[in-house]
Amino acid sequence: MEVQVFSAAPIDMNEIIIKKDQDSSSKSVELVTDYLENYKYDNVLSYLKDIHNADIADILQNLDPVLRLSLLNIIDKDFDPEILTYLNDSVREEIIETLDIKQLANNAKSLDTDDVVDLAEDLEEKDQTIFLENLDKEERTLVEEGLMYPEDSAGRLMQRQFVAVNQSWNVGQAIDYLRNNKVKLPEDFYDIYLINNNQEAKGVVPLGKLMGSKREIELNSITNKELRLIDVNTDQEDVALLFNKYGLVSAPVINNKKKIIGSITVDDVVEVIEEEREEDILKLGGVDHTDLYESVISTTKSRISWLIVNLMTAVVASIVIGLFEAAIEKVVALAILMPIVASMGANAGTQTLTVAVRAIAVKELTTSNAIKIITKETLIGGINGIIFAIIISLISIYWFDNMLLGLIIGLAMILNLLIAGFSGIVIPLVLDKLKIDPALASAVILTTITDVFGFLSFLGLATLFLI
Amino acid sequence: MEVQVFSAAPIDMNEIIIKKDQDSSSKSVELVTDYLENYKYDNVLSYLKDIHNADIADILQNLDPVLRLSLLNIIDKDFDPEILTYLNDSVREEIIETLDIKQLANNAKSLDTDDVVDLAEDLEEKDQTIFLENLDKEERTLVEEGLMYPEDSAGRLMQRQFVAVNQSWNVGQAIDYLRNNKVKLPEDFYDIYLINNNQEAKGVVPLGKLMGSKREIELNSITNKELRLIDVNTDQEDVALLFNKYGLVSAPVINNKKKIIGSITVDDVVEVIEEEREEDILKLGGVDHTDLYESVISTTKSRISWLIVNLMTAVVASIVIGLFEAAIEKVVALAILMPIVASMGANAGTQTLTVAVRAIAVKELTTSNAIKIITKETLIGGINGIIFAIIISLISIYWFDNMLLGLIIGLAMILNLLIAGFSGIVIPLVLDKLKIDPALASAVILTTITDVFGFLSFLGLATLFLI
Repeated sequence: MEVQVFSAAPIDMNEIIIKKDQDSSSKSVELVTDYLENYKYDNVLSYLKDIHNADIADILQNLDPVLRLSLLNIIDKDFDPEILTYLNDSVREEIIETLDIKQLANNAKSLDTDDVVDLAEDLEEKDQTIFLENLDKEERTLVEEGLMYPEDSAGRLMQRQFVAVNQSWNVGQAIDYLRNNKVKLPEDFYDIYLINNNQEAKGVVPLGKLMGSKREIELNSITNKELRLIDVNTDQEDVALLFNKYGLVSAPVINNKKKIIGSITVDDVVEVIEEEREEDILKLGGVDHTDLYESVISTTKSRISWLIVNLMTAVVASIVIGLFEAAIEKVVALAILMPIVASMGANAGTQTLTVAVRAIAVKELTTSNAIKIITKETLIGGINGIIFAIIISLISIYWFDNMLLGLIIGLAMILNLLIAGFSGIVIPLVLDKLKIDPALASAVILTTITDVFGFLSFLGLATLFLI
Repeated sequence: MEVQVFSAAPIDMNEIIIKKDQDSSSKSVELVTDYLENYKYDNVLSYLKDIHNADIADILQNLDPVLRLSLLNIIDKDFDPEILTYLNDSVREEIIETLDIKQLANNAKSLDTDDVVDLAEDLEEKDQTIFLENLDKEERTLVEEGLMYPEDSAGRLMQRQFVAVNQSWNVGQAIDYLRNNKVKLPEDFYDIYLINNNQEAKGVVPLGKLMGSKREIELNSITNKELRLIDVNTDQEDVALLFNKYGLVSAPVINNKKKIIGSITVDDVVEVIEEEREEDILKLGGVDHTDLYESVISTTKSRISWLIVNLMTAVVASIVIGLFEAAIEKVVALAILMPIVASMGANAGTQTLTVAVRAIAVKELTTSNAIKIITKETLIGGINGIIFAIIISLISIYWFDNMLLGLIIGLAMILNLLIAGFSGIVIPLVLDKLKIDPALASAVILTTITDVFGFLSFLGLATLFLI
């Protein structure tokens, strides 16, 4: 029998070609649509049986609403609640309305606790009560506990099933224990945790090391070099940072008595990272959530508050311009040039802001190096200010044949980019200190400052020296 | 002996308190600084011996440059190359210059191939040659092969050590095999792969299932329901999507003959997700990379190209305003109000753009639903346009006591928000079709359009009807 264990042989580079077809999801939607339209319900069911719940969610999401309903009718009692965890909010809500909540609770028995918590937290209160009432008593207690932890905390994220054995055991004892408790094992686990007689966490043994060790080896001798414990109240973003920094696959969650009460695995963390990534990007773009499948009306509603804030700052900027009405009436070139200083300030400030928001999120920018980075960014603002002052001065002098106007716009540019650099870093730092998410509010405060100050400096200097 | 295996007992909620101290990194920097300044070199070494390489990298990054050099001198020959993989670019380059590349190659033997590839790809050509020459012959071949795969491909990401056994084996055979090949096992692995006699991938068995099964169980009967293979040329972002969607911890990488040539584990994917997240955020903010530790001059240089692009679009907007010089001279209120329409267009467009860029990245927005989403976003733009048209009309009429001016700015607002909604979704889609990263160029194209069209519509309508 020929078996290759470690591929160490050089491979032929010519062999390497194709990339997997990524648009397979739209093909399955077409296929299912076709089956449904032709009433081939058995084909649908046998097709769905072989694919992952994430793919079923994809199909549900992209089906025509009428066909979606008939698909749900066909699946009926066999609906796997895990599918719901893969759906976008709007489609999930729509589907839950058509489901029998009792049946759903019944089907949820196959899920890990953390997934059930995930599911329960998104149900409306009335549905949540029915759902919880119909779970097994033991599971219900665990789920209710999970729901008591703050949203986005390690407690919400952890699964309650984990494997922990006494630190005095050896490899053979651990393996036998696992084999004898097969039905109770969590669906996914990658480490076993060692505990002392007080159930305190004492070490982590990766399964790979366990597998590679003889039966008589002490578990204590094959633990990871470091033991990293996660307090149950830790924010999920900090959990993600920890997993990322140290390349963890799972970590024990402890209460304040250092007792292990759960386990977080990396697949949950990957989801958190994706979630936080989305959040940061969306907030910086002035959108509080995104759901491609949401209706026009509710999408419009969700966008409007941000636009109202923006309208107010735009009106404030206009009021500032209004202060210099007389100057603009005399020199119309001011009106033509004034957006340039404001726009450059907004852009330079946004660059700094983006770097700052990201550095705060990954904890690279902290109180200890804040002064250094503020100085650096203000300096960069100043240098860019000088460079672009020269360029815009030359352009303005050539355009309007007015030396003084060129000097004034140059000076305004330097001042505004200095302010932009300084504000770009100080605003998110201050917001972070005030426990306001820097990604959310920084951009609008920054552009208000750079707009107002951009118009103010340019038109103000012009009024002083030109008029 | 009391052993708790599955924590199913309800826990006391009062027990849950504290969150881990997150600012421990600045404390270690202070400690090491203190040791170094007082020449307590033995203390430094024994302190570093007990902490993770990621933490050592943190310390190096935040130390004063002079102390950093003396720390490197103290560590000297024992420098673990893995530390380099945790450093930001600028600090890494600085440190590599002080290191003996031969020694580094020698120390790299303890690393997994994928980490060595990671390290080698960042070295300058001259250093890379020396580095590769000083690796073991076998390792060198693997690393050189790794470097031949396209950047950001699965081939760069995969590790070459993995565990694959014949599909006809049973659990006992697999466990014995692992025990007998302990030294050759990869540092981290969570699944073993099943292969047929042609070395083609045939199944994945999670270690957890292997551990929970009796020795005589066939491996074939405990595989994951689905087998997901990654082509070696797949883009790393697609790999990340796959891991995230299906909650994978590891997956076999295959060549075009379906032979397994490597394995990607979730810790690498977490890094990719963080990397791509950073990239998207930075690009949308007009920054091409971020490195808090980079010098002022090189940071300024890296920011300037984006600002030049922005200056050009700002000048274009000014030229448009210049076309309406006569109108502004007559009605100075136009100059005061004109930034509002442009600014609202930019903001509404950015909202749509952000949603679109993100939906394209996660492949929710595809050719198959593009028309639907374009229609939806344009409609949202129209609705918001009408709402804000009414508000800004009322403000303008009240402010300038001019009914016609109010109607004109309202009409311009509707037109610009329609254009903004449409452009916000069409620009990233078109860029994506043209294989240009939508996150990079969308924002500047969008604001150019909304600025130019904002000024054009408002001042143009004013010239037609007001002057």
